[in-house]
Amino acid sequence: MSALTGLSYLGFSRGRVGGRTWKAFDSALWNDLPEVFHSATAADVATAMKLAAQATPVLAALSGKAKAAFLRDLATRIEAATPALAARAQQETSLPEARCLGEIGRTMGQLRLFADLVEKGDWLDARLELANPDRKPLPKPDHRSMCRPLGPVAVFCASNFPFAYSVAGGDTASALAAGNPVVVMAHHAHPGTAEIMGGLIVDAVRAAGLPEGTFSMLMGDGKDVGQLLAKHPALRAIGFTGSRTGGRALMDIAAEREVPIPVYAEMSSLNPVVLLEGALAARGEAIATGLAASCTLGVGQFCTQPGLLLMVKTPAAEAFVGQLAAHFRNAPEGVMLTPAIQKAYVTGLAARETRGGIQAFSHGKGSGKPGRALPTLLAVGAKTFLSDRKLQAELFGPSSLIVWCDDLAQLSKVLESLEGNLTATLHGTDEEVVAQVALRAQLEALAGRVVVNGFPTGVEVSHAIVHGGPYPSLSDGRSTSVGSNAIYRFTRLVCYQNHPDAALPVELQNANPLGLSRLVNGVRTSDAVK
Amino acid sequence: MSALTGLSYLGFSRGRVGGRTWKAFDSALWNDLPEVFHSATAADVATAMKLAAQATPVLAALSGKAKAAFLRDLATRIEAATPALAARAQQETSLPEARCLGEIGRTMGQLRLFADLVEKGDWLDARLELANPDRKPLPKPDHRSMCRPLGPVAVFCASNFPFAYSVAGGDTASALAAGNPVVVMAHHAHPGTAEIMGGLIVDAVRAAGLPEGTFSMLMGDGKDVGQLLAKHPALRAIGFTGSRTGGRALMDIAAEREVPIPVYAEMSSLNPVVLLEGALAARGEAIATGLAASCTLGVGQFCTQPGLLLMVKTPAAEAFVGQLAAHFRNAPEGVMLTPAIQKAYVTGLAARETRGGIQAFSHGKGSGKPGRALPTLLAVGAKTFLSDRKLQAELFGPSSLIVWCDDLAQLSKVLESLEGNLTATLHGTDEEVVAQVALRAQLEALAGRVVVNGFPTGVEVSHAIVHGGPYPSLSDGRSTSVGSNAIYRFTRLVCYQNHPDAALPVELQNANPLGLSRLVNGVRTSDAVK
Repeated sequence: MSALTGLSYLGFSRGRVGGRTWKAFDSALWNDLPEVFHSATAADVATAMKLAAQATPVLAALSGKAKAAFLRDLATRIEAATPALAARAQQETSLPEARCLGEIGRTMGQLRLFADLVEKGDWLDARLELANPDRKPLPKPDHRSMCRPLGPVAVFCASNFPFAYSVAGGDTASALAAGNPVVVMAHHAHPGTAEIMGGLIVDAVRAAGLPEGTFSMLMGDGKDVGQLLAKHPALRAIGFTGSRTGGRALMDIAAEREVPIPVYAEMSSLNPVVLLEGALAARGEAIATGLAASCTLGVGQFCTQPGLLLMVKTPAAEAFVGQLAAHFRNAPEGVMLTPAIQKAYVTGLAARETRGGIQAFSHGKGSGKPGRALPTLLAVGAKTFLSDRKLQAELFGPSSLIVWCDDLAQLSKVLESLEGNLTATLHGTDEEVVAQVALRAQLEALAGRVVVNGFPTGVEVSHAIVHGGPYPSLSDGRSTSVGSNAIYRFTRLVCYQNHPDAALPVELQNANPLGLSRLVNGVRTSDAVK
Repeated sequence: MSALTGLSYLGFSRGRVGGRTWKAFDSALWNDLPEVFHSATAADVATAMKLAAQATPVLAALSGKAKAAFLRDLATRIEAATPALAARAQQETSLPEARCLGEIGRTMGQLRLFADLVEKGDWLDARLELANPDRKPLPKPDHRSMCRPLGPVAVFCASNFPFAYSVAGGDTASALAAGNPVVVMAHHAHPGTAEIMGGLIVDAVRAAGLPEGTFSMLMGDGKDVGQLLAKHPALRAIGFTGSRTGGRALMDIAAEREVPIPVYAEMSSLNPVVLLEGALAARGEAIATGLAASCTLGVGQFCTQPGLLLMVKTPAAEAFVGQLAAHFRNAPEGVMLTPAIQKAYVTGLAARETRGGIQAFSHGKGSGKPGRALPTLLAVGAKTFLSDRKLQAELFGPSSLIVWCDDLAQLSKVLESLEGNLTATLHGTDEEVVAQVALRAQLEALAGRVVVNGFPTGVEVSHAIVHGGPYPSLSDGRSTSVGSNAIYRFTRLVCYQNHPDAALPVELQNANPLGLSRLVNGVRTSDAVK
């Protein structure tokens, strides 16, 4: 592993020196790390985008097999570099080693999932409507359609996932798998981790013989670099994971462009959990243990952290909250990702604790070291909650807010008042869950994933996962940013009319040489067309 | 058929009198039609949206079979009302009877296509990832996902398709089929046609026992009603077919909302046609005949009208243009849809004809009657075209612009300068088509449908059609507004984690009672889960 230079990757070259510089910060030791990083210049952004535009048609013509080989090779390179990646990420994010290793594993898993997907090709949704010259009143033309890449995609990295939602994370993997060039905006808080990962991707691009503009990565410690990137005329889509303010700013830039482009911004989510009486009576302690673990996991720095707990105030619920509070009290303090995130947590928590009508059920004692966060459970009555929209704002960190309801009707009103979420969770006996038809419909309308008798943290990477939901959890609530369905965010439909067989993409040719599952005249088949 | 009242449909009630009033206009006879129409009031918009919001969970719970029965019944009602619909549309749009009848047929066909689609249910993309409690390091949860409705959809009707892209057109059919309530903004130029069709939908909603808010239709002769509708907090998506100005205005409103929503606006398209030398030499006259018919069909008032013809200046091309010009000269004048559209055509054409460097190849003589348009072929050199972006603006009507290129390299530069299109067409011998790999890739990047040796007008309604393309042809170039894929515009993905079987949507239950094609642990199957 060569030493860090702090420079952007512009295809196979490096960025210019001359912009602002900054250093990464170790929140655990509370000091700067030694290396200097260089914000990309406007010329760097232009170079990266020019290369990406040049790479676009080459990547669009690439076979699924070639893309799969590239993604798998990248996963192998990440595997080999795991110790260096994990060591740097621990310094820059204060996430423990096991978490870093787990997340690197997940990142490789994502790359391999997309490799399998594009190698097979069924995901392309190939559809054939064969010509019928005898159709009346007009002959039927030959139409064949499938998903095609969009063009250059910008990926804005997350602070809380230095691997799985960063340089080689889900957005990058799905955009590359779909055949798009990617320009990554590295996260300023873990630039060294980003530089190591960026180097691995550049190596993989070279080794695969892909065009130089397949991948670039811009360094930056301010909003300006990302804004230049978002405004670039050649850009075709944006993936983003981060704050609501940052995501909405990108959405606004994208909407105001001469040619607006789609933005997939994962921004904020309260992840409400509804706890029904039967479940609390039957297994309150088990739920309290699992829920407290989910609330405080990774110092609460997950987008699926359950920040809102809704209950009808019954004796079972009060006993349950006593147990939950005990877990919060016993949970250790943790180092947060960055001083800014820690400050926002502490400030936001203090504002809630001093608000009238809020009860702090548990509150541990901290070590007094800087950068730390204490798990904190709060409670409020539904009336107060409904009267104060500020309590709906996500408080990123290990805190959850109980909303006490008088009855299920009031609980339903609280749900009705909520914004969109990534997840919504229901705890109940099987009888309760089945019987609560309207409540389940309400949870479904609120979120992209409805969890029954489980906890929302821990996001599977699979074909059926949905990591998305109504605004503001995702800017585009129709999609998912995790799992194989995420690839469709970076594609568009194209129909080929009356093409000679040899001029068609191989996936649409009569012989079906790849053996794809296709919709031929409305019927699903893997057969060739005679 | 009861007499026209000129009022909006607010579910099962009618709109208020008190807003602005206007009359429809017969462009062929150049006079007002007698009936008075009433612009919806702000209270009307609020009522329609309130009803739509109330209908949302009811429709979301509806079975595919029930939706299919409703859509088919609506088609049957349209069939029965065809004479009245066609008669009124002829007066309001000046489209000939055969065209009106054909379009009504297409509208019924669309409703029946979506009925078949949702009755079967395969379109839902049901995916199951079954639990594996033994997986290491963590147990695998049970995840099942599919497409779910978005919520209330606003449909803005097109001037040029009084049926297929209006009240019961493709946007309405796909939004209803997906399980969403629809609030239609009727087109002010054919309000009587809209009122008849709106009444049929209301009848069908009643007959099916669907909630009142399933369908409403707002009348309006200005932008204000549509803007109120687009800004309503309960709205979840917008479908629009019309001008670039109108579409972009809706996009901007949607992006500026507190909760931004997706807009599917079909706005403008030049539909470039590239004519290669071999094809012109081999069958120039046949191409000229077909192309002139496509350019002037329906007085050129199609979104897929070929407005831009690109050729290298060879003797074969010059001979071809002579033939094409003769067809234009012989094409009859026609009555345009509205006085405003006719005025825009005549003004725009005059601005082009008097511009330096533009040659008017053919120009018929008109009858001098008002509201008429003459087919007109124009030609310009590539250099002039490249230097004047105004020539890229769509000129809605029966006119096409030839761009003469020095060679294929210059033709490629012209293509590179173009905005997005619904279609791009290539005429060549089979050898030419197959050999022009880069040219085809360029056409594909420009459009949602690439036509070889055909003409872009005439849009199939099928599983493989793509009626969409990069901005500004569609606001969201990832989608299609025609064909079965159009349903996905009005859906979102939802994942159900660890639900008891009885709490799952029937499409995701173990027994697979509907026999759907599902992706189970990554494998496509119609089998039940044991």
